[in-house]
Amino acid sequence: MADEFPVPETRVLAVASHVVSGNVGNKIAVFVLQSLGCDVAALNTVQFSNHTGYGQWKGSRVSAEEITDLYQGLKQSYLDEFHMMLTGYIPGAAAVNAVGAIAKELRAKAEQAPEKFFWVLDPVMGDHGRIYVAEDVVPAYRSLIPYADLILPNQFEAELLSEVKITDMETLQQAVHTLHDKFSTPHIIITSVNFNSSTPPTHLTVVGSTMTSTREARLFKITFPAIDCYFSGTGDMFAALTVVRMREAVHATPGLDTVPSWISDDSVDALDLPLARAVERVIGSMHEVLSKTSAEMKQALEGITIPEDAGQARLAKSKAAELRLVRNLSCLRSPSEDFKAVRI
Amino acid sequence: MADEFPVPETRVLAVASHVVSGNVGNKIAVFVLQSLGCDVAALNTVQFSNHTGYGQWKGSRVSAEEITDLYQGLKQSYLDEFHMMLTGYIPGAAAVNAVGAIAKELRAKAEQAPEKFFWVLDPVMGDHGRIYVAEDVVPAYRSLIPYADLILPNQFEAELLSEVKITDMETLQQAVHTLHDKFSTPHIIITSVNFNSSTPPTHLTVVGSTMTSTREARLFKITFPAIDCYFSGTGDMFAALTVVRMREAVHATPGLDTVPSWISDDSVDALDLPLARAVERVIGSMHEVLSKTSAEMKQALEGITIPEDAGQARLAKSKAAELRLVRNLSCLRSPSEDFKAVRI
Repeated sequence: MADEFPVPETRVLAVASHVVSGNVGNKIAVFVLQSLGCDVAALNTVQFSNHTGYGQWKGSRVSAEEITDLYQGLKQSYLDEFHMMLTGYIPGAAAVNAVGAIAKELRAKAEQAPEKFFWVLDPVMGDHGRIYVAEDVVPAYRSLIPYADLILPNQFEAELLSEVKITDMETLQQAVHTLHDKFSTPHIIITSVNFNSSTPPTHLTVVGSTMTSTREARLFKITFPAIDCYFSGTGDMFAALTVVRMREAVHATPGLDTVPSWISDDSVDALDLPLARAVERVIGSMHEVLSKTSAEMKQALEGITIPEDAGQARLAKSKAAELRLVRNLSCLRSPSEDFKAVRI
Repeated sequence: MADEFPVPETRVLAVASHVVSGNVGNKIAVFVLQSLGCDVAALNTVQFSNHTGYGQWKGSRVSAEEITDLYQGLKQSYLDEFHMMLTGYIPGAAAVNAVGAIAKELRAKAEQAPEKFFWVLDPVMGDHGRIYVAEDVVPAYRSLIPYADLILPNQFEAELLSEVKITDMETLQQAVHTLHDKFSTPHIIITSVNFNSSTPPTHLTVVGSTMTSTREARLFKITFPAIDCYFSGTGDMFAALTVVRMREAVHATPGLDTVPSWISDDSVDALDLPLARAVERVIGSMHEVLSKTSAEMKQALEGITIPEDAGQARLAKSKAAELRLVRNLSCLRSPSEDFKAVRI
């Protein structure tokens, strides 16, 4: 019996962090991509014992030179043919630029057939108003955005890139418009939109847009119930699923995979965009995995005594909150169809 | 719908090499383990662009100190609870000893319930009469074998460890007996047995044994058709499958998972060993994946002109011979039942 996969043969270069234990960065992205049928080249930008949310970790970063060197290794053996590239956390501006140079080179290599290379860039810089990378990473990402096909900033990262303060749907639309216009970014997904940061939200919204030929936004949104816990690795899983579901949706649209950056014709309405179909399926999987993780986390925490010491309590909670994916594969393969894109 | 997995919740520490592109070491072992439902902590001993069979590669080794450090990172955050450990390629004697120290510590931690920790050790040293690690790695492995529950040397590695020259089934039995007796190794699998190295074999044999309480061997063999090509990563995939199928077979045997090292009672015949059931299923998956890889490799090579330059030809062939696993997952999940253990 042949296995069924949502995408045709797809070779992806995934550049992100590696943790020995737990499920963030490439540790979760590679498994998601492989489970959905992609041949993944995994270039790890760090090897840490665990994610930094624990408050303590061991291990080391991979330098910008080593990143470049690993790519040269692929190149010299003709292993640098990729349909797609996914980039996540990269430690420091020099390494961001090294990864950017790889993406530019892969883009240049596809000059004769630009539709054959698609870069999904997750500009990992911060969240909830706080930058958690070095300051010079922000301009480094700004200089790379014009080379990406699809970016997935969260609300705060969208502000950093667009330099538009997002406080409501109107300013969010301005930010998206700026990103399309200033950086020519074809596809934008703003993850976890929340205009009222003072109270925990009951629902979260993802906003997406594929630009028209005149760089106008075609905006849609998808709203889903919030889960009252932060799970590290959520963004990495979202990005990996986006790679697969975008390729799937484009592949299902006759002729679109021959168009550079897979930009739908101007006649296509926002709600009919392949990007909208992709994000619907991504959220279908995400919501199910997060719900299961939340339930299993509560169960795990009920079984133990949370230490009084704040640091120890953080360790116990971080461990309990690791994404539960490996034994919940059906969430990936058969995403729920509960979430539909609507007009903003 | 719940996913179905062959093993109960199983947390595995997998220590082996990482390659950006291709399918060897942890790159294939982690995917095999995860796909079959294990929660894997992946400690990568190198990050290379590709496997060394290409004849050229870039990247770097992880030092013995860094390996120890990463484990300390797990420990300080209480992430060092493992049901099983799988160790593959480790660069150099110092690193082998560092990994050995981790295994010994995990074994000591399980002192009150020794059956709760099981170490599968693949003593990667060489093949076909040639050592491809530093000479001092051999004594380093010899000193660690007594701490392992299951070892999977190939024929040449079995010779190195037992110091018995294997030329026929009789000397092979002597080697197995020596390993049980000298190192107290409970479970032994000798992969790819072939007594006539001058002609390409039409069939290969795997020999297994679980010792009795008096360290006598209980030998069985499984023979399967040889595939006329060497595929890098085969041993790593075999070892990862063994982790899962051994745990599965033991779990299916009432009471056995409360016995240290999961050693069957003396009354159990060689052909009824859980190890025999495990290896049957491992070979069922292996043979199918290798057959598919061989077919896809031939197809890939037909589509290209093999370069005249020997180095370039090697690159093309190595790339074509990468294991095809990601899109052949059903081989893992539902192994063929064609291969049965028989008496030697």
